[in-house]
Amino acid sequence: MTVAPRIAIDAMGGDDGLPVMIEGAARALGEDPALRFLLVGDEAALAAALSARPALAAATEIRAAADVIAGSDKPSQAIRRARTSSMGLAIDAVKGGAADAAVSGGNTGALMAMAKLALRTMSGIDRPALAALLPTLGDNDLVMLDLGANTECDANNLVEFAVMGAAYARAVMGLAAPRVRLLNIGVEELKGTDEVRDAAALLRGATDLPLRFDGFIEADRLGRGEADVIVSDGFTGNIALKSVEGTARFITDLLRRAFTSSLRSKAGFVLSRPAFHMLKTHLDPNNHNGAVFLGLNGVVVKSHGGADAGGVANAIGVAAKLVRADIARRIADDLAHFRAGPRTAVAAK
Amino acid sequence: MTVAPRIAIDAMGGDDGLPVMIEGAARALGEDPALRFLLVGDEAALAAALSARPALAAATEIRAAADVIAGSDKPSQAIRRARTSSMGLAIDAVKGGAADAAVSGGNTGALMAMAKLALRTMSGIDRPALAALLPTLGDNDLVMLDLGANTECDANNLVEFAVMGAAYARAVMGLAAPRVRLLNIGVEELKGTDEVRDAAALLRGATDLPLRFDGFIEADRLGRGEADVIVSDGFTGNIALKSVEGTARFITDLLRRAFTSSLRSKAGFVLSRPAFHMLKTHLDPNNHNGAVFLGLNGVVVKSHGGADAGGVANAIGVAAKLVRADIARRIADDLAHFRAGPRTAVAAK
Repeated sequence: MTVAPRIAIDAMGGDDGLPVMIEGAARALGEDPALRFLLVGDEAALAAALSARPALAAATEIRAAADVIAGSDKPSQAIRRARTSSMGLAIDAVKGGAADAAVSGGNTGALMAMAKLALRTMSGIDRPALAALLPTLGDNDLVMLDLGANTECDANNLVEFAVMGAAYARAVMGLAAPRVRLLNIGVEELKGTDEVRDAAALLRGATDLPLRFDGFIEADRLGRGEADVIVSDGFTGNIALKSVEGTARFITDLLRRAFTSSLRSKAGFVLSRPAFHMLKTHLDPNNHNGAVFLGLNGVVVKSHGGADAGGVANAIGVAAKLVRADIARRIADDLAHFRAGPRTAVAAK
Repeated sequence: MTVAPRIAIDAMGGDDGLPVMIEGAARALGEDPALRFLLVGDEAALAAALSARPALAAATEIRAAADVIAGSDKPSQAIRRARTSSMGLAIDAVKGGAADAAVSGGNTGALMAMAKLALRTMSGIDRPALAALLPTLGDNDLVMLDLGANTECDANNLVEFAVMGAAYARAVMGLAAPRVRLLNIGVEELKGTDEVRDAAALLRGATDLPLRFDGFIEADRLGRGEADVIVSDGFTGNIALKSVEGTARFITDLLRRAFTSSLRSKAGFVLSRPAFHMLKTHLDPNNHNGAVFLGLNGVVVKSHGGADAGGVANAIGVAAKLVRADIARRIADDLAHFRAGPRTAVAAK
């Protein structure tokens, strides 16, 4: 367990680039003074930005990178620039041991491809997955995975995602035995695809894992606080997550339209501002920023491209928690338990 | 085209059963006096209910059914009661020609199984699909399908869904060439599963259909008015629809919590009531009630189990529109065009 996590930050990625990444790092340091940073990007611009922030400068090293991966770059193009780009060199710092984790707000596909290539998938894991935290009406956030790293998955992939997601929930939310469910179109045993049903059979048999498998969950129950980890293939998870995000925005737009429709409504809106503020805080994606690639030999966190400084600080905080929790070892231990457990016969079917 | 559609109603299905179905039929008749009904269910209870409603009674025949399909009945059990249950006999009336369409608020799986068995899939259609209307920020509602009838689909199934969904949008919304998109995890041509990419290739080649294929759409753009028809397999569509419904409810619950948090917020809420009413009307599932099984030799509409009388009237209105539009013939004509079109070579790949 690293008491002072060293976080490599791709300072050039994200919609607003360097200023928001710097401000995010400064905020993260304010909340967690033990952090150390490696800021990767335009050397002169970074030096100039740090000269105005002595506290951050004291906790930071600069690593120069001339090249920036654009949002439109294909992963296949990006990986050729692993040694020149700010994103590539941030990951490289984790690989080489100069940092414990990398954070980037850049191109997700490129980040995934470069991280896989540089850090390699953990032994025992078939495929890494992208996991994120979602708000719920319950006491805790919800870990959802995979959110788009793997378009198609078999039952064993889903089981590995369950194990990785549970390790994440234990690390970030401090739960002893997270409640895990598989996302499906019904809760009865016969519902869904072969992959989902087979994964459920494997998880029902796995009694020696630090998680509680509670069967299936339907997509209209995502935010009700009925699960700590929800597992799906990357296609389904991406559809569910984006449906949630789109609907939240849709309703916010409708509310805005409704509240500007009359003077009376406008007055009501002014009076209700604290209530709306509460709603906005709860739904603000910045408060849940920081998607994690689980299953790699190293911690890589994707900050949303449009995140503000608070969002970036949140993503850095997630990275620090995962480093302190030694997430890769936790996943490896859980998988070893799972594979040694009594349900190996089912897995071999 | 039937000027006076005859609608068979499963008067016993749905959470609130007979009273809400009767009240729904009465409202539908008030809006569309040409309608004629065949109410199927408990004969004595129906006669008693109609005696208090002379206008509805004059437009209605009763068909006695002693048996009711429960929400917990499996489709395989339900189909054995096709000749005794109110749901089965409502569908049978369509098959026998006594009615033009059937409406039920009962068990979806049972309704699908019975409707398929009695009415059979249209010639040229591999699999029927469940379609529904969703609200958007644009001028029109959105047709989404499949919402759960088919867990796994190949590219040809998706193309058939696109043709059926477009025919539905033309019939119900009066659009000449509905804008059709495939639901996917990105808009680039290479994104998604083989099935989705192959379906896109087929639809791009189909230039002689009364629809405009606009490529892929991501789930966060569902309600933005950028498409009239959105097509997916039944697993994905069900996940997307339920994510939307669940998020809408989640935010409503958060709003309620926020608005009861202080006296000031409560006052703001009272003042804002018209705005909330507007929001509620827009999001109320009753205003979009009536999911349709497309691809059968006959019109079968599923009313939501929890729909109120306005919702039931809406579902009856959807059934009447589809009858008047001669939906099955429209789909058959479009498919014939599609199959005769220049892209047969692509389809044969």
